Amino acid sequence: MPAHPRNNTPMSIRVAILGPTGYTGLALIEWLLRHPDARITYLASHREELPNIGEVFPRLQSAIPDDVAVCKPIDPEAIAHQADVAFLALPHRTAMQHVPPLLDAGLNVIDLSADYRLADPDLYEATYDHPHCDREHLPDAAYGLPEFFRSDIKHAKLIANPGCYPTAAALALAPLLRRGIIATQGIAISAASGVTGAGRAPAPHLHFPEQNEAFGPYGRIGMHRHQPEIEQTLTTACGEQVGLLFVPHLLPTTRGIFQTIYADPVDQDVTEENIFEAYEDHYDDEPFVRVRNDLPNTRDVNNTNFCDLTARVVRTNGAAKVVLFSTIDNLVKGAAGQAIQNMNIRFDRDETAGLI
Amino acid sequence: MPAHPRNNTPMSIRVAILGPTGYTGLALIEWLLRHPDARITYLASHREELPNIGEVFPRLQSAIPDDVAVCKPIDPEAIAHQADVAFLALPHRTAMQHVPPLLDAGLNVIDLSADYRLADPDLYEATYDHPHCDREHLPDAAYGLPEFFRSDIKHAKLIANPGCYPTAAALALAPLLRRGIIATQGIAISAASGVTGAGRAPAPHLHFPEQNEAFGPYGRIGMHRHQPEIEQTLTTACGEQVGLLFVPHLLPTTRGIFQTIYADPVDQDVTEENIFEAYEDHYDDEPFVRVRNDLPNTRDVNNTNFCDLTARVVRTNGAAKVVLFSTIDNLVKGAAGQAIQNMNIRFDRDETAGLI
Amino acid sequence: MPAHPRNNTPMSIRVAILGPTGYTGLALIEWLLRHPDARITYLASHREELPNIGEVFPRLQSAIPDDVAVCKPIDPEAIAHQADVAFLALPHRTAMQHVPPLLDAGLNVIDLSADYRLADPDLYEATYDHPHCDREHLPDAAYGLPEFFRSDIKHAKLIANPGCYPTAAALALAPLLRRGIIATQGIAISAASGVTGAGRAPAPHLHFPEQNEAFGPYGRIGMHRHQPEIEQTLTTACGEQVGLLFVPHLLPTTRGIFQTIYADPVDQDVTEENIFEAYEDHYDDEPFVRVRNDLPNTRDVNNTNFCDLTARVVRTNGAAKVVLFSTIDNLVKGAAGQAIQNMNIRFDRDETAGLI
Amino acid sequence: MPAHPRNNTPMSIRVAILGPTGYTGLALIEWLLRHPDARITYLASHREELPNIGEVFPRLQSAIPDDVAVCKPIDPEAIAHQADVAFLALPHRTAMQHVPPLLDAGLNVIDLSADYRLADPDLYEATYDHPHCDREHLPDAAYGLPEFFRSDIKHAKLIANPGCYPTAAALALAPLLRRGIIATQGIAISAASGVTGAGRAPAPHLHFPEQNEAFGPYGRIGMHRHQPEIEQTLTTACGEQVGLLFVPHLLPTTRGIFQTIYADPVDQDVTEENIFEAYEDHYDDEPFVRVRNDLPNTRDVNNTNFCDLTARVVRTNGAAKVVLFSTIDNLVKGAAGQAIQNMNIRFDRDETAGLI
Repeated sequence: MPAHPRNNTPMSIRVAILGPTGYTGLALIEWLLRHPDARITYLASHREELPNIGEVFPRLQSAIPDDVAVCKPIDPEAIAHQADVAFLALPHRTAMQHVPPLLDAGLNVIDLSADYRLADPDLYEATYDHPHCDREHLPDAAYGLPEFFRSDIKHAKLIANPGCYPTAAALALAPLLRRGIIATQGIAISAASGVTGAGRAPAPHLHFPEQNEAFGPYGRIGMHRHQPEIEQTLTTACGEQVGLLFVPHLLPTTRGIFQTIYADPVDQDVTEENIFEAYEDHYDDEPFVRVRNDLPNTRDVNNTNFCDLTARVVRTNGAAKVVLFSTIDNLVKGAAGQAIQNMNIRFDRDETAGLI
Repeated sequence: MPAHPRNNTPMSIRVAILGPTGYTGLALIEWLLRHPDARITYLASHREELPNIGEVFPRLQSAIPDDVAVCKPIDPEAIAHQADVAFLALPHRTAMQHVPPLLDAGLNVIDLSADYRLADPDLYEATYDHPHCDREHLPDAAYGLPEFFRSDIKHAKLIANPGCYPTAAALALAPLLRRGIIATQGIAISAASGVTGAGRAPAPHLHFPEQNEAFGPYGRIGMHRHQPEIEQTLTTACGEQVGLLFVPHLLPTTRGIFQTIYADPVDQDVTEENIFEAYEDHYDDEPFVRVRNDLPNTRDVNNTNFCDLTARVVRTNGAAKVVLFSTIDNLVKGAAGQAIQNMNIRFDRDETAGLI
Repeated sequence: MPAHPRNNTPMSIRVAILGPTGYTGLALIEWLLRHPDARITYLASHREELPNIGEVFPRLQSAIPDDVAVCKPIDPEAIAHQADVAFLALPHRTAMQHVPPLLDAGLNVIDLSADYRLADPDLYEATYDHPHCDREHLPDAAYGLPEFFRSDIKHAKLIANPGCYPTAAALALAPLLRRGIIATQGIAISAASGVTGAGRAPAPHLHFPEQNEAFGPYGRIGMHRHQPEIEQTLTTACGEQVGLLFVPHLLPTTRGIFQTIYADPVDQDVTEENIFEAYEDHYDDEPFVRVRNDLPNTRDVNNTNFCDLTARVVRTNGAAKVVLFSTIDNLVKGAAGQAIQNMNIRFDRDETAGLI
Repeated sequence: MPAHPRNNTPMSIRVAILGPTGYTGLALIEWLLRHPDARITYLASHREELPNIGEVFPRLQSAIPDDVAVCKPIDPEAIAHQADVAFLALPHRTAMQHVPPLLDAGLNVIDLSADYRLADPDLYEATYDHPHCDREHLPDAAYGLPEFFRSDIKHAKLIANPGCYPTAAALALAPLLRRGIIATQGIAISAASGVTGAGRAPAPHLHFPEQNEAFGPYGRIGMHRHQPEIEQTLTTACGEQVGLLFVPHLLPTTRGIFQTIYADPVDQDVTEENIFEAYEDHYDDEPFVRVRNDLPNTRDVNNTNFCDLTARVVRTNGAAKVVLFSTIDNLVKGAAGQAIQNMNIRFDRDETAGLI
């Protein structure tokens, strides 16, 4: 097959991906291959036998240049020599072992793990049940949710890419909390995710015949690791401690996150117009948040970097309840797409480059 | 093919099905074919060209006796001559036109439409946007939820088989409301249903490529027609007006209803034990309600008449929230299976006959 | 929950299942629970920690009597004491270790593994790459395809239940080979199976996101272990050595086998009528083979014990080709249902008992 | 939302799409939005009420510029004023009514319907049961299968984009027929397609609950409209009349075509090496054909413009049979992707532009 010369302009952003063999790694590769102004130069694996990504994912064969396809070791100096930015699609706990040497080698780092998302290392340790071994760089990490922290992202060498559930939840809730439209307590989030959200390792309950035609909640209810991350973003947004209940479910789909969120209005006279105004106020210039009048569906955002949102106010026996609907593709706006959006911001490119 | 003599004992219950060409009709037929003590004797259709059910559903060919397979007209006298009970799987509004003559002809009637579920005909008219044309028999209809109205069912000539959503919701909520464990206001139900719940008529949004890999809410939020039915059952159960918010979603599955229900405890010190006690108290002798410790999933109830239930109490910032999980097969416990359970009760058979 | 007294008549067939924790075991349990004249009395496992089947398959909870739900060891004497027949849903190779003591203890044995399907033990050893350790009983085993070996089955203590692919293939091909309608060489079978056909053990390629929206062949083409079994049945049927090519594919479904079979007619003037005549001749009295005019689909046979068949003759540039279509549910007519059909025959019950 | 300036370079190819509201239209829009050197300037609909494409496909909202989103009438002069090339995603029969005026207006035309695929208008009329109303331009149409007709495509004002099945079949068969490796008669193609291949109009058998968990053949076997198109390409490739049998099946998936092809070798001593040599010889420089050693699967080509191929030689009772496996995404290499590949060739761009 002929080499594909695309994206090899001298000025294009040179990208390394650490841990490319999971679903997030695959999504990063596929979206970066289409990016007009970035190119993958280094795939790094911590496996002893270095994998050829075209064998791991046959769909990438001859799409990715041969010299890049074979993974190389995680060698920060070598990576820094060949790349401007390192995306880390490594497991939680592993990522923070690699971040310090990568930063020291001069690289920009976009970490897709949870290791730098929680500002408070004690909360991290309680949540992930593991010591945080890089408290030094934690304060410098920008939380990579552009719609709320764009200027931080622009200036940060280290970007903590948000979790998939926290992205969908924060985009729906933060503008309303900031404006004081909904109460900070008593928020309930019914979330549903496609199976790629559970990773690529086979497991009995993720075996095709078990998950096909199946739907139900999972994990310890009220203890999901994304809950503190959601609360942190919302608390930052409104300046008050936010309390919420997060209940995740598993969908019989490959992709897609959907959240139906129940909240109490601060003012019983709240209208849908109030909410749409808050959304439009916050999202009017945002390229990837679509405030819709009709009801969102994962089908409309799958394989896109969009978050679709809407709201309803329902009155029962006189009491008003606010219901929000938010959906993203867990692998795109919930992972790889948002990471590329952050790269675009950091490297001063058009924020939508490679994403529409 | 040889005739299959099964179920043709002289004492077996003779069953007519009106409107057998939808998914509920198919489920009725398949479950009744297995019933040890009932047999289908009459399929009745209001179509001009009377369908052969084996052509409508090729899976029934040679399972159903030839002389029954060809539908006959809806003729109450003829039906009464050949059947002891008539199951109505007709559309709302159509059902109540046929009930009076069927009752007059001496038949027992189990109506799977919504026409006799709401005790208040004005509420029916407001909800279904149509006059109720059989106010006469409405007061005599038993609401066919055996776990709460078994003795009514036993003595009723007319049984209104509950809706699928109301069944799953009432089984989860009623014992807790009755015991005063959860508040009567502020209940939010996140419900999800397989596509058979939307019927057998093709529609753009139910076209396979649209609904595959898709998930989202539908309808006018807060206005689902099952909401008054749920409220009626719960209000009956606890003697107080109950207010709730019901949000339905469509799953990319053929079958299965799942409900995640958020409620406020009356007493902040409520424990999961309190809830399980209430459930066990109410359901200990119930053959079709399974109170589980682990989390339910539609996969465990699909193609069964079971309702699987569990509960969690979650505390956030000191505030307790009760989360209930309830799941049934919309076509079985949510329709055909429950109808047969009602028939078993009415005809003094073992309630589980043909259902396990 | 109350005990369910059903099927506990003194004369009902008492059934043991060895290896009930796979998909075939589950199917056996669910179909036997509905059987009017058989009851499960013993579940036997070779696992060290004896599983409770209600924990392995939550859908069985309270459907199966408590005293049966907890598996017991594989103890032939104890089994013979409590059961009339033993169904073996054990892996290949394991089954034949247990068959001799079970037969010695006086039990009827229906083996759902491959161990007694091939009459020639050398062919077995070449195919399954393992010594056959029960050559003694092999000649006594009846091949449990009722449509061709009903009288053998009636008189055999040991029944080898056919493979799923061989069942669908033999039912389509054998009548035509026997009548000399199609040539014995050059038959090509394009087969597709739902994922339960690959068993219950998780594997990377059977992980939900890999198998969802996927379709393709698998294994070493031309080397599938079911090919010699198909050839054996067909060679028996027509008295000539049959040669065929079998190409299996995996469907993104839980259940269902579909086969599209290409064969050359012996006589170029063959008509579809000739084929339908041969089918009707052979299958006219068969309760579970449906010869259809229209095209079969797995949707029509899933969760039934039927095999749906049809045939087309197509002429291209003057040359005639016979195309056969055959479909069954791999877990029912391809495993558990056929095993129960064999039990019914062996124990002189109505052959359709519990199966329609 | 901000305008997205991408692709608006003065030299980029300006594209019109006629009939953008089907699945092929959607695929064209999504792939063209990513193209580095083309931009959509005109969406044309023949509906009376001109649709907004963002309402038809909510996933396109804010991805497509507002001024383009609202469809305009099919006005050849206006289109020629704003576009360099017109893609026709119109139904068969409708397309050829619009081609002459579009060509007259000076546009390049890439027609995705069947109207210009068959060189012989009488064969067209027999196959599509409709007069061919543009016999004038038919001889000028290049058949848009770049791997075989690249130089024709380069110089043609009118390109007939191949059917999805014919693309997958021709790529697998043509090199082997051309080299005389397989016989020209007796080829059997078992093809399977995702449901988007059947279009976007709802139909009873494409209703989600019918098609979910279903698999089977469709149509009149041996009479599929794509069969003459496949034969024409193969006959052109090898200079001899080719005869084949084509049997299509419908998969429970949204996308993907898979073909398993059975052919007789000309020489019984044929080896897989012979076949791979022929493939490599023909496809070595082809960017979108991947000759694989392992077995292809739709999962590896879905949402790509690749065709994955492999071959096996199987010997049964001494007789050799060649089995070919070929897979594409029906909406990409089988429709929109190939159309863009043709545009790239015609407009002298890198053939892979926008496609990897």
